[in-house]
Amino acid sequence: MQHFDCDYMEGAHPLILERMVEHNMVKTTGYGCDEICASARKKILAACGNPDSEVHFLIGGTQTNATVIKALLRPHEGVIAATTGHIAVHESGAIEATGHKVLTLPQHDGKLWAEEIDAYIEHFYADESFEHMVFPAMVYISQPTEYGTIYSLAELESIAAVCRKWQIPLFMDGARLGYGLASAEADFTLEDIARLCDVFYIGGTKVGAMFGEAVVMRKGLVPRFFTLIKQQGALLAKGWMLGLQFDTLFTDGLYLKIARHAINEATRLREGLVAKGYKNYSTSPTNQIFLLLSPEELATVKQVTTFTEWDRLPDGNTIIRLATSWATRSEDVDALLEAL
Amino acid sequence: MQHFDCDYMEGAHPLILERMVEHNMVKTTGYGCDEICASARKKILAACGNPDSEVHFLIGGTQTNATVIKALLRPHEGVIAATTGHIAVHESGAIEATGHKVLTLPQHDGKLWAEEIDAYIEHFYADESFEHMVFPAMVYISQPTEYGTIYSLAELESIAAVCRKWQIPLFMDGARLGYGLASAEADFTLEDIARLCDVFYIGGTKVGAMFGEAVVMRKGLVPRFFTLIKQQGALLAKGWMLGLQFDTLFTDGLYLKIARHAINEATRLREGLVAKGYKNYSTSPTNQIFLLLSPEELATVKQVTTFTEWDRLPDGNTIIRLATSWATRSEDVDALLEAL
Amino acid sequence: MQHFDCDYMEGAHPLILERMVEHNMVKTTGYGCDEICASARKKILAACGNPDSEVHFLIGGTQTNATVIKALLRPHEGVIAATTGHIAVHESGAIEATGHKVLTLPQHDGKLWAEEIDAYIEHFYADESFEHMVFPAMVYISQPTEYGTIYSLAELESIAAVCRKWQIPLFMDGARLGYGLASAEADFTLEDIARLCDVFYIGGTKVGAMFGEAVVMRKGLVPRFFTLIKQQGALLAKGWMLGLQFDTLFTDGLYLKIARHAINEATRLREGLVAKGYKNYSTSPTNQIFLLLSPEELATVKQVTTFTEWDRLPDGNTIIRLATSWATRSEDVDALLEAL
Amino acid sequence: MQHFDCDYMEGAHPLILERMVEHNMVKTTGYGCDEICASARKKILAACGNPDSEVHFLIGGTQTNATVIKALLRPHEGVIAATTGHIAVHESGAIEATGHKVLTLPQHDGKLWAEEIDAYIEHFYADESFEHMVFPAMVYISQPTEYGTIYSLAELESIAAVCRKWQIPLFMDGARLGYGLASAEADFTLEDIARLCDVFYIGGTKVGAMFGEAVVMRKGLVPRFFTLIKQQGALLAKGWMLGLQFDTLFTDGLYLKIARHAINEATRLREGLVAKGYKNYSTSPTNQIFLLLSPEELATVKQVTTFTEWDRLPDGNTIIRLATSWATRSEDVDALLEAL
Repeated sequence: MQHFDCDYMEGAHPLILERMVEHNMVKTTGYGCDEICASARKKILAACGNPDSEVHFLIGGTQTNATVIKALLRPHEGVIAATTGHIAVHESGAIEATGHKVLTLPQHDGKLWAEEIDAYIEHFYADESFEHMVFPAMVYISQPTEYGTIYSLAELESIAAVCRKWQIPLFMDGARLGYGLASAEADFTLEDIARLCDVFYIGGTKVGAMFGEAVVMRKGLVPRFFTLIKQQGALLAKGWMLGLQFDTLFTDGLYLKIARHAINEATRLREGLVAKGYKNYSTSPTNQIFLLLSPEELATVKQVTTFTEWDRLPDGNTIIRLATSWATRSEDVDALLEAL
Repeated sequence: MQHFDCDYMEGAHPLILERMVEHNMVKTTGYGCDEICASARKKILAACGNPDSEVHFLIGGTQTNATVIKALLRPHEGVIAATTGHIAVHESGAIEATGHKVLTLPQHDGKLWAEEIDAYIEHFYADESFEHMVFPAMVYISQPTEYGTIYSLAELESIAAVCRKWQIPLFMDGARLGYGLASAEADFTLEDIARLCDVFYIGGTKVGAMFGEAVVMRKGLVPRFFTLIKQQGALLAKGWMLGLQFDTLFTDGLYLKIARHAINEATRLREGLVAKGYKNYSTSPTNQIFLLLSPEELATVKQVTTFTEWDRLPDGNTIIRLATSWATRSEDVDALLEAL
Repeated sequence: MQHFDCDYMEGAHPLILERMVEHNMVKTTGYGCDEICASARKKILAACGNPDSEVHFLIGGTQTNATVIKALLRPHEGVIAATTGHIAVHESGAIEATGHKVLTLPQHDGKLWAEEIDAYIEHFYADESFEHMVFPAMVYISQPTEYGTIYSLAELESIAAVCRKWQIPLFMDGARLGYGLASAEADFTLEDIARLCDVFYIGGTKVGAMFGEAVVMRKGLVPRFFTLIKQQGALLAKGWMLGLQFDTLFTDGLYLKIARHAINEATRLREGLVAKGYKNYSTSPTNQIFLLLSPEELATVKQVTTFTEWDRLPDGNTIIRLATSWATRSEDVDALLEAL
Repeated sequence: MQHFDCDYMEGAHPLILERMVEHNMVKTTGYGCDEICASARKKILAACGNPDSEVHFLIGGTQTNATVIKALLRPHEGVIAATTGHIAVHESGAIEATGHKVLTLPQHDGKLWAEEIDAYIEHFYADESFEHMVFPAMVYISQPTEYGTIYSLAELESIAAVCRKWQIPLFMDGARLGYGLASAEADFTLEDIARLCDVFYIGGTKVGAMFGEAVVMRKGLVPRFFTLIKQQGALLAKGWMLGLQFDTLFTDGLYLKIARHAINEATRLREGLVAKGYKNYSTSPTNQIFLLLSPEELATVKQVTTFTEWDRLPDGNTIIRLATSWATRSEDVDALLEAL
């Protein structure tokens, strides 16, 4: 039996564990105010080509989304997201728990369209009762999206332009950013992301770390963000563990290297499945594969691997997700393809 | 120039003002713990045929919705509403400000469909990751809806049955309840409402009162609701003013009587407009009239009355709303029809 | 039996009711965007000597406090108040419900001391772990206080200076402001208040209005305050009713005139009680009288008037409050004094 | 230079790291639904003598406190804590951010007194305006306290009795529980804690783990606690890392064994310091040592070790904290004592 449920089934890249063991008994200051974190911040900013930004380390995605959004919005404001956006669906109302509405727009392959964001905001301010409604005050996008697709550079530029037009910040959830950057279809770089987003994060949990997300933020965007992280319960006491992981991932291009491996395995798996007649449900060029399965196919697949059931359609078919990761072994992909 | 913007342009029914003047200098206990409120509660419960319920008086609709919903939901729960529901659109995020998500379902003439609510909840619990999502834990409907339409008794029964099936409360926003009850198409009574809803309110602000909403609630549904009203800033110091208004409205059937007047005038106005070729946009049988106007028609109407602009359509047409109320004078309706 | 429980037992000043009746059937725009509100705003600002400020009308005190404080604080910030401050005790946690901590300092006759505020903030920033704590980010005072005492002009100047030093806003709860201004001991004017506070409100509910509080705010202090009022459920649909009341109260000095009457009656009552041997518990020079009663005295007083029990002391004695108001009749004071 | 700042300067107990390395590449289900977590839960419940309770793993203390308190309180309720309680001071308002007030009572050596809790609640319900106040609805204690002191079994029994009397839950913050259990003065066991508290947690972060807190909760106390953890951003994707750590700590009594080591070193250090004339500020019998230092002493100590500055007193003296931990090396204690 194989396991392709998700991209966070294993621990951390061995280099990280090695350093963790090495540093384990060194007495280190708490809360991220240590030299390892300082080093990690520097390397991340260098990779972003944006030495003047701030980097903050948090533990997981939901808490990062809630902390950033709460930090950026005033009470009457909400955040625009795709109907399939993680914050709109799978975070148990974490954003609303901070008092803010998620304003959803249609998704297209999991993505927002710049022109629809623009039209929405324009329509909002044209409404004579807009002062009785939630103000659209930031845009949330996921790169890659929840359907594994990626925004092209042109799409990112357009969305960033709409945000600048309306003077609202653009926030990118990069829980799987590595797999986006490493995708063969990616025409953007980390520097592009850093240039276009007011705030985004580089996901560690799903790309080689035990846990951890590195928030990169325009300097001064949020005063006292440290205290907000603390309030949101997202401050790791032994903050150096976050620094150490990102320092390792951003040394010698490890982050991208391991992401590329995941992409290669995903591509092999996807092509193999399609060759066998399975129906690709999404155009994902990243590490997630979405299949549309008939009941018979579902039964077959169930016998050889675990996966995530994405949706049950009214017609009886099922959408499932398989995911590779930095840790996927080629022989497991081979075995799965063989078994099907 | 006429004014048909909304149903809260005038003050209160003269009988209310009379009693207000009469009682003005009588020293009365605060916060609704007085005899006038007690009398009003009794009359309302008699009208509901439900002497065992509780009645609480609040000041306005948005605060009532937020207070009731906050009171009924636990932190991981949300409220189901139509996409056009007042709480989903025009309350500036008051529900989210209490920490809860509004889970929207499609509207049909402003209404939720029982089967869609049922399917939504069934699909929710069938999702293998439902524990990562907001639980659908109450249903909010408006009667009449934001489009002036009304749920039939059968529709109400069906929705109540779905709520009972899933053991979640049914909450009815009755800001314009009088106009629903008085509508020629209404096949339900106040007793039906009281029987089918776990909690609902009888709107005063739009039906004869200066302000005020009377919440009717299954006994014991919410412990310490008084304190929640206070916390939400919805407790009127001189609570007797709320009691006095509802006591008046529920004496000798005044509430329904004045609502019927509004309906009669709305019907005359609607039929008159249609006769003149204006396009009815909604099937509203209550006091709100929605028209779909071409730019030319819009310009014409603007010259003779004020109204509420409801939506500007991409095709250049505009939806507007005209509303009558308990206070609408027949001569104003005549004048408007004549002028068009 | 007399009734001196509080200063909100009667309705409104007759002049207000008169105008309310007069205007009752005039169709008026909602939400405070009408000409009566505009007129009231102008008169209030004239009385404040501060034509460039903003005036917003809300309905009651708790909702005003919550709305203003939520509007001014970022998520990591709290509000400094006296331990006896209304927001710290008697608002059912309305401030915390908006996500903010009330940071309490000792009260002295119900008042904060400027030097203690200053020392608190200085100590806060000197603490090496201040980033793990709630930032003191605004000061809340009540004038008069919950014990009926008033801040002198010098005290207000000092507190305002501390606020300016730390660049945090000063917010004054003026639910009984009229009775402070009218007190014989008051050495400050409404213009002083307007000059020294960043935001304050002029209480209507307890000083001649049916309900209503007029928030006066430094221009631009809070963007989109209207929407915040709406979100907090504090926006009256028929906003003109608030404007009308304040317009009346600020015509021909009515507000101060009726407040002075309350003070005169309170002074007579207080002096009469002391002459009869009752022990004054507070130095209140305003319309509230606090008495420290032995069990026997308590029993006696109970037979002749209703009042508010303030606190039961461990030694068996009780503190009670009697209050006069704009509506107190001299003959009732006479009768009470006679009966005791 | 030595480092006695706090008890979370090192990583994890070597046995934990060993297993982490071992398990690293094993594909494991997410979110704590795995067999390692199941095993850890079983061992913890066995140690608690309470097989029917629930165990939930969270990442850090502040998020655990916020999640538990939010889960247990209804909107009108608050939590009683000592003025020095962690939730009242050092969590950046995390509790208030969930909408709830922390109701503080005086601390005695960092502890609440049962009789004062009882008196507070009794006084609350005796107050005629209690419905306008925040209801005291749960009790929060820290064991050991923020001053390193511990509640005796008798004290715990008394507080639990008061909670039962008023039917409110008792919640114990056990961020340093190991050091309490291992203290020479402890007359209670983990079984006692489990019997007396409705919910408590066993701290991992400060007692041998990389991070992690194990919440033990009366079965069914909080429906859908999993979803609340998710919403609060406290759900670790790779939940097995939490299970693995607690499974290790609760195998062969490791948790207590390493805690005892910290106590031994703290005792040696404390006695050594007192012998040298340093003034013990707290009666802490656990791993934290509080010293009251003159400016000269402070300067001396600063030259040989880092520490946490606890408070600067108005008289110029300073309270500092030194802490040992499971990881403290005896030679470092020797070196520090020698250097002073």
